[in-house]
Amino acid sequence: MKLLEERIKKDGIVKKGNILKVDGFLNHQMDVELFDEMGKEFKRLFADAPITKILTIEASGIGIACVVAQSFHVPVVFAKKAKSLNIDGEVFTSKVESFTHKRVYDIIVSKKFLTPEDHVLVIDDFLANGCAVMGLIDLINDSGATLEGVGIAVEKGFQTGGKMIREKGIHLESLAIVDGMNDETGEIFFREQ
Amino acid sequence: MKLLEERIKKDGIVKKGNILKVDGFLNHQMDVELFDEMGKEFKRLFADAPITKILTIEASGIGIACVVAQSFHVPVVFAKKAKSLNIDGEVFTSKVESFTHKRVYDIIVSKKFLTPEDHVLVIDDFLANGCAVMGLIDLINDSGATLEGVGIAVEKGFQTGGKMIREKGIHLESLAIVDGMNDETGEIFFREQ
Repeated sequence: MKLLEERIKKDGIVKKGNILKVDGFLNHQMDVELFDEMGKEFKRLFADAPITKILTIEASGIGIACVVAQSFHVPVVFAKKAKSLNIDGEVFTSKVESFTHKRVYDIIVSKKFLTPEDHVLVIDDFLANGCAVMGLIDLINDSGATLEGVGIAVEKGFQTGGKMIREKGIHLESLAIVDGMNDETGEIFFREQ
Repeated sequence: MKLLEERIKKDGIVKKGNILKVDGFLNHQMDVELFDEMGKEFKRLFADAPITKILTIEASGIGIACVVAQSFHVPVVFAKKAKSLNIDGEVFTSKVESFTHKRVYDIIVSKKFLTPEDHVLVIDDFLANGCAVMGLIDLINDSGATLEGVGIAVEKGFQTGGKMIREKGIHLESLAIVDGMNDETGEIFFREQ
């Protein structure tokens, strides 16, 4: 998606260690009008899928998921990262390893909100090693719902998550795939799609 | 806002201890089309305020804030609940006591995203004792930005947050104010607005 690639080039900041900071428009400050354009693009890319629900994970996936959901006219469910006292009853649960935060955490979704009748699109801001997305897919599989696909804003193409998910035959669409960065020049190299 | 009150009556669940569960449409599963109507109502209520930015707090405020922000055509910034390794540079910080999670946590916003030029609308899903909103207002005051008001989906009118914020002369708008609940009959009593 050219609009997103151009925004990453303009406002993304390359740091040592293959870190790409997009906190000015994607995951701390959020440009909701860009998100709306991303929603229209996901709607085009998943036009044939009978999606009934969008699933994401707190916290930075929620904003994108909610704006994208408006293009699909479906509700959003977000997986929570720890057992909250406000969640009662039964939950689906999975484990996710966060390399950013250097720990493993549980993710949970109330069983009320994922059912065998649901056709689910997973939406998240970033795809790197794929642990968060695989955790969400575990929840979907446990619920008996149908996974229709995965929509990602920015994929780090030099990490393994995208390859792993595509090799499973899952319909994955990343609006921008970063294949490399140069932290001295600030250059960002995108995969042709 | 009648639409929200009716939805709370239809899908809200009253539990012992003055707990109102609205996780079917507000803060676990999220009805983004309802959020869009809430955004239009906030835009009407804050029509005269020169709002440049919406500030919320992770996690359940983010979805509402992002959809509401589309009615204002401004970006959203969300305060994070713990120091993330992905946030570098300087941050504004405040402390918030969570009665739900029975702990005190730090909230932070990058100094890049709140400046003296900003006119900020605070948006959150729930207002009870007001600790989260007051923490966000602390961040705004520290930044030199102007607080234009606070927009809440559901206020628990029998707790002290709303009164405290209004007594400070802050423009607070809650789309539904719950003045009482009956956990035996499931009845929910709304304040006339």
